[in-house]
Amino acid sequence: MTHKHQKETECKIKIITVSDTRNIEKDKSGDKIQEILNDKKHTIDRTIIKDNKTQIINKISQKYDLIIYCGGTGISKRDVTVEAIKPLLDKEITGFAQYFRSKSFEEVGSRAILTRAIGGVINNTLVFALPGSVNAAKTGAKIIKKELNHLMYHIKQ
Amino acid sequence: MTHKHQKETECKIKIITVSDTRNIEKDKSGDKIQEILNDKKHTIDRTIIKDNKTQIINKISQKYDLIIYCGGTGISKRDVTVEAIKPLLDKEITGFAQYFRSKSFEEVGSRAILTRAIGGVINNTLVFALPGSVNAAKTGAKIIKKELNHLMYHIKQ
Amino acid sequence: MTHKHQKETECKIKIITVSDTRNIEKDKSGDKIQEILNDKKHTIDRTIIKDNKTQIINKISQKYDLIIYCGGTGISKRDVTVEAIKPLLDKEITGFAQYFRSKSFEEVGSRAILTRAIGGVINNTLVFALPGSVNAAKTGAKIIKKELNHLMYHIKQ
Amino acid sequence: MTHKHQKETECKIKIITVSDTRNIEKDKSGDKIQEILNDKKHTIDRTIIKDNKTQIINKISQKYDLIIYCGGTGISKRDVTVEAIKPLLDKEITGFAQYFRSKSFEEVGSRAILTRAIGGVINNTLVFALPGSVNAAKTGAKIIKKELNHLMYHIKQ
Amino acid sequence: MTHKHQKETECKIKIITVSDTRNIEKDKSGDKIQEILNDKKHTIDRTIIKDNKTQIINKISQKYDLIIYCGGTGISKRDVTVEAIKPLLDKEITGFAQYFRSKSFEEVGSRAILTRAIGGVINNTLVFALPGSVNAAKTGAKIIKKELNHLMYHIKQ
Amino acid sequence: MTHKHQKETECKIKIITVSDTRNIEKDKSGDKIQEILNDKKHTIDRTIIKDNKTQIINKISQKYDLIIYCGGTGISKRDVTVEAIKPLLDKEITGFAQYFRSKSFEEVGSRAILTRAIGGVINNTLVFALPGSVNAAKTGAKIIKKELNHLMYHIKQ
Repeated sequence: MTHKHQKETECKIKIITVSDTRNIEKDKSGDKIQEILNDKKHTIDRTIIKDNKTQIINKISQKYDLIIYCGGTGISKRDVTVEAIKPLLDKEITGFAQYFRSKSFEEVGSRAILTRAIGGVINNTLVFALPGSVNAAKTGAKIIKKELNHLMYHIKQ
Repeated sequence: MTHKHQKETECKIKIITVSDTRNIEKDKSGDKIQEILNDKKHTIDRTIIKDNKTQIINKISQKYDLIIYCGGTGISKRDVTVEAIKPLLDKEITGFAQYFRSKSFEEVGSRAILTRAIGGVINNTLVFALPGSVNAAKTGAKIIKKELNHLMYHIKQ
Repeated sequence: MTHKHQKETECKIKIITVSDTRNIEKDKSGDKIQEILNDKKHTIDRTIIKDNKTQIINKISQKYDLIIYCGGTGISKRDVTVEAIKPLLDKEITGFAQYFRSKSFEEVGSRAILTRAIGGVINNTLVFALPGSVNAAKTGAKIIKKELNHLMYHIKQ
Repeated sequence: MTHKHQKETECKIKIITVSDTRNIEKDKSGDKIQEILNDKKHTIDRTIIKDNKTQIINKISQKYDLIIYCGGTGISKRDVTVEAIKPLLDKEITGFAQYFRSKSFEEVGSRAILTRAIGGVINNTLVFALPGSVNAAKTGAKIIKKELNHLMYHIKQ
Repeated sequence: MTHKHQKETECKIKIITVSDTRNIEKDKSGDKIQEILNDKKHTIDRTIIKDNKTQIINKISQKYDLIIYCGGTGISKRDVTVEAIKPLLDKEITGFAQYFRSKSFEEVGSRAILTRAIGGVINNTLVFALPGSVNAAKTGAKIIKKELNHLMYHIKQ
Repeated sequence: MTHKHQKETECKIKIITVSDTRNIEKDKSGDKIQEILNDKKHTIDRTIIKDNKTQIINKISQKYDLIIYCGGTGISKRDVTVEAIKPLLDKEITGFAQYFRSKSFEEVGSRAILTRAIGGVINNTLVFALPGSVNAAKTGAKIIKKELNHLMYHIKQ
């Protein structure tokens, strides 16, 4: 398991905001994720969907190398993003949720126990779900940005 | 739990053939399912996709009242339709698989132990997967046809 | 695995009707189950609860040898009896659902594909869930009645 | 997802000690949890049950806003609290276990890898399981105390 | 999905009797399974193990084309064969359990609801578990014998 | 739940390297694990197997008190060690993965989100899976070494 993957990978990225209330003009969390991942090598698409399991599932597509859901990860009844995605993952990247949350604990303390996030692989596509708040989305997107090459390298093996 | 639901329901139906080898012109199983479900009240769309988990997931949509997958239900490694759909179901209609298989046992005997089929509900959409052979597809589609009103009535409750 | 268990077992039985609409006076399905299982050796308690996961779980108790839920087994969103009980079972008696349904197919044909039923063991307690219609409750209760000694003998091993 | 929930919530709390050896007089861990959560706004009930899956399940009740199990969370065969509760949760608050354990690592180092804890939501009731040792119970109860309003606010959405 | 697989397949078969009480001399069920599957094309090994999850798991091996467990499939606490095998299966051949049980219902009526059996595929190996009684073992082995070529053909695809 | 278990336990240990490319002479990670756990009280066996689910399962054996898999824990398609072991565990020692990863985060930062590790109990045997890199294997083996007595004491209860 060598870790040589210096060459930057070109990625097709999809950012999917999950929200019953936001629209594309006011989607600051989606804006933040796009800003962080922005890179001339990558192409980035965006969309907004409702907090709805069928719509969430329906957006899974092998046309993308990386799909990031933003929102719907909380613990109220209408939050179904984690529940919709988890059973679809071929492999869960359990370390992502732990690392993301340990960063959140540093930032906001025990309040982050309500924060749910998930990452994994479906076929050759990386899929992540991040909370809908701008700060949490930023924290998550930065981790993904930093490890994107490394993750892409391994799932393409 | 009354069973009065005589009024015929208008259905948006999607038939999805899952096959690495067939094309829309030669898709006799899809033709057979369409022929059986055909009814002026319903609208029927069709498509063909590869034996690929992401493509199967990607076709789940609440735009339809009924989605029928045909093919990819066997026990070889490339057969992934049942595995892709099962974790998505809110409720599994376990009786469908049993009834379908008992019909198959009557038709072809113990050979039908290899036959896998599944049915269930995702939000308000009925989802079924039938084997790719014309006879099995016919057997399954007839059961769905017969109970469609009854099923629609209950999931809309 | 000998099958000597002629001696009739004394059972503490609980019948739990799951319904948002019935009350104890009009609970014909519960009456039918009680009538079938009635035997001077057994003691039978009854109660009615709402279609509510917490209430269903809350009724599991080792004070009983046999707990029968009646109702809430359908496929509409408010039907949660099967979903509440299934994850609690130490062992599922999968043959019960198959036998019950094959009897239902004989009685009402393919319409019974909507019928869900489940049986299993939690610690030393038998737990079953039957549909809320009088006929289905009757069919299920008769099977349980017939095999009760046999089942009790095996789970007490 | 605003985080305005300053108004203190009134809670019905149940503390359930799971132990084969302790009794209510000597239940120092239960005492500690009660002491930490004690508040004139809340009502707190307590009980002791055996390390027994059926008894654990049987205590789930929507009459409470918060149920805390204490004990039976270890890795020996008789420890079944986590196994009994996990399949009942509608949503697991995975961050709670991580935060609790990171606090335990700070307190006792790698020895805390044996510590299991779990938190989640069943309908509108918060359910947690904490280890039976006084120190671990104290660590867990303090986290719950601190985030109780926040958690209550979100699950009531 | 053609069904041309007339050429008889040569199989490496392992029969594993799961019993706390039988020994190889008195293993009539194992004898019966061997007698039914016996064929000069196949090689058949046999062994006896205790009702123990670790021993059951430990016998899974890709050196065999077909592994048949016999015994430990009941509903008493010491019966763990089904529980040990089920999570290991890449694909469950759900139709086998249904067909086997429908035969058992014909033979012994509703008493067979206690009968549990399971079949599936792990990598390229067929794995089945049959009840320990001579009659049930016979019923199961005959079904496997009849469909062995067909099953082998499909899993080797 | 006292924590007195000073007396050193004698352990039968198995180290299983999972690799398609290494051999026993070049297995530096296995060497490192053996070196760390080496103790005159313990006996240590070693073997190398391929990245293959059946071979991984097949090595589970109650002849050992501690089984450590090394390798095959990544997120590429051929990494199946975690997937093979997880469904076999009677109890997962979830704290091990968290502690191991928090150490890995300290050592290599967010790159360790790709690191998967798992620990748990099958009957009376401790089972762990560690990544195949020498450094990760070392980090994991040191944690196991430190808590081995404590873990053994609890699972033998």
